[in-house]
Amino acid sequence: MLLLDGKKLADEIKLEIAREVQQIKLAGGKVPHLAAVIVGNDGGSLTYVGHKVKACEEVGIRSSLLQFDETVTEEFILKEITKLNENSDIDGFIVQLPLPKHIDPDKVLLRIDPKKDVDGFHPVNMGKVVLGLPAYISATPQGIIKLIERYKIETQGKHCVVVGRSNIVGRPISILLSSKSKTGNATVTLCHSKTNNLKELTLQADIIIAALGKPEFLTGDMVKEGAVVIDVGTTRVPDTTSKSGYRLKGDVKFDEVAPKCSAITPVPGGVGPMTVISLLLNTLKASKHEVD
Amino acid sequence: MLLLDGKKLADEIKLEIAREVQQIKLAGGKVPHLAAVIVGNDGGSLTYVGHKVKACEEVGIRSSLLQFDETVTEEFILKEITKLNENSDIDGFIVQLPLPKHIDPDKVLLRIDPKKDVDGFHPVNMGKVVLGLPAYISATPQGIIKLIERYKIETQGKHCVVVGRSNIVGRPISILLSSKSKTGNATVTLCHSKTNNLKELTLQADIIIAALGKPEFLTGDMVKEGAVVIDVGTTRVPDTTSKSGYRLKGDVKFDEVAPKCSAITPVPGGVGPMTVISLLLNTLKASKHEVD
Repeated sequence: MLLLDGKKLADEIKLEIAREVQQIKLAGGKVPHLAAVIVGNDGGSLTYVGHKVKACEEVGIRSSLLQFDETVTEEFILKEITKLNENSDIDGFIVQLPLPKHIDPDKVLLRIDPKKDVDGFHPVNMGKVVLGLPAYISATPQGIIKLIERYKIETQGKHCVVVGRSNIVGRPISILLSSKSKTGNATVTLCHSKTNNLKELTLQADIIIAALGKPEFLTGDMVKEGAVVIDVGTTRVPDTTSKSGYRLKGDVKFDEVAPKCSAITPVPGGVGPMTVISLLLNTLKASKHEVD
Repeated sequence: MLLLDGKKLADEIKLEIAREVQQIKLAGGKVPHLAAVIVGNDGGSLTYVGHKVKACEEVGIRSSLLQFDETVTEEFILKEITKLNENSDIDGFIVQLPLPKHIDPDKVLLRIDPKKDVDGFHPVNMGKVVLGLPAYISATPQGIIKLIERYKIETQGKHCVVVGRSNIVGRPISILLSSKSKTGNATVTLCHSKTNNLKELTLQADIIIAALGKPEFLTGDMVKEGAVVIDVGTTRVPDTTSKSGYRLKGDVKFDEVAPKCSAITPVPGGVGPMTVISLLLNTLKASKHEVD
């Protein structure tokens, strides 16, 4: 059983990105610049954005944080986004979710210039992914694809069962894995809350992407011998022995499932670290105008 | 076995559209207006566009045909599209494919204002379909969904196997059938040319969408008792007994498959007639600015 070490791989890719940014600097080019917009003081959001800013620093990507008070109007935020769209010093930017209730996230999303949408959430980018055109792929699906690519996991002709149809994970990864590409060409079954015969389907899978957000729902009896299992779940469960008071639990019952697998991601240290890489890669892409 | 009569259903829906257009006229509103752009003299394209224009006439939708010589430049066509984008008298328009080789279809597509993209091919519309936002759905997938809706075919929790992953049929219908909606919530497996175990999968299907473009590839031994089969194939095969010299063949070996089905579409007269309806529905939507 091969452990797909996302932490180690993410560190390797960070080094590669750092080298590329360094070369851009040495050649006198413009250093990539990411902006992050955050509205309010949500603890989780601040932590996430903090990680992203730190990752930028590590690889030499410039970053700017725009934190606005929770009470700002929707109109105000939309104007700020227009400014970021027009600011040629900013290559790409993200708007951290969730937003306060009085701000419509769809309106905000649609205001972002797709060329600067390094989160890959704008419908244009989603549509380009579907059509196989150059696009920003969102963090988690791109992280999974990189993991598959670097670990040389064969996908062509494999039956891949994706569990969970969210817009940020299940849906896009199901599209990518079934598309005509080196890390695609799989036969993909997309399962979700309305699926009646989940176990029957996962038992047929050569590759399982577990992205339902339900801790340990994928048990040993649901997986066939030799399967590859990618665990996208990161539910916080209380843990008094941990400094933070919680720990992350994946969607996979690791102890039962791992012995049957040919390869599996741990939680934490699997898909998680790969998602930040994705944002760095997209920012680099943006600075090179590869998705214009 | 229920025959899903697309011809009859399309006629019913045409009547409904005609009534709605009539009401708009009576209320003194702007009559919906579709434009179709065609470059060159391809016989097939002229026939297809002809059908579309005729369908518009039947329901009282205005239509304009812009036919340009095969030798016009890409720049010329892009300018014409900009004019159509800006012309407030035109609610929606389509550019008939294929285009001559010196014109890049992706460039043309991306130039179309998504709000007027009644073919639903622009990445924004594709992305909005993925995200479940109001959008133009392209002709064939929307036609299939209407067929499913009107014939009250239950999709929730059903295992639906889509064969073929084209951007205009297989891919979007797989997204629609697995999305959270009245005509969705199915567990969807998307199969294609790289699928190894096609028969094993189709035998599990409650619903099969055959959209591979390979005449009669779906045989009786590939279908379980009681399945619903939707045949999207329309390959022209020579036929000396027909006036046109050819006839349409579907992807399903009808004589073998039909007796096992609870419901099946014929070819011709199944999905085909439903696709033109789709364009009319989208033009009506455009005139009501429902996708802005």
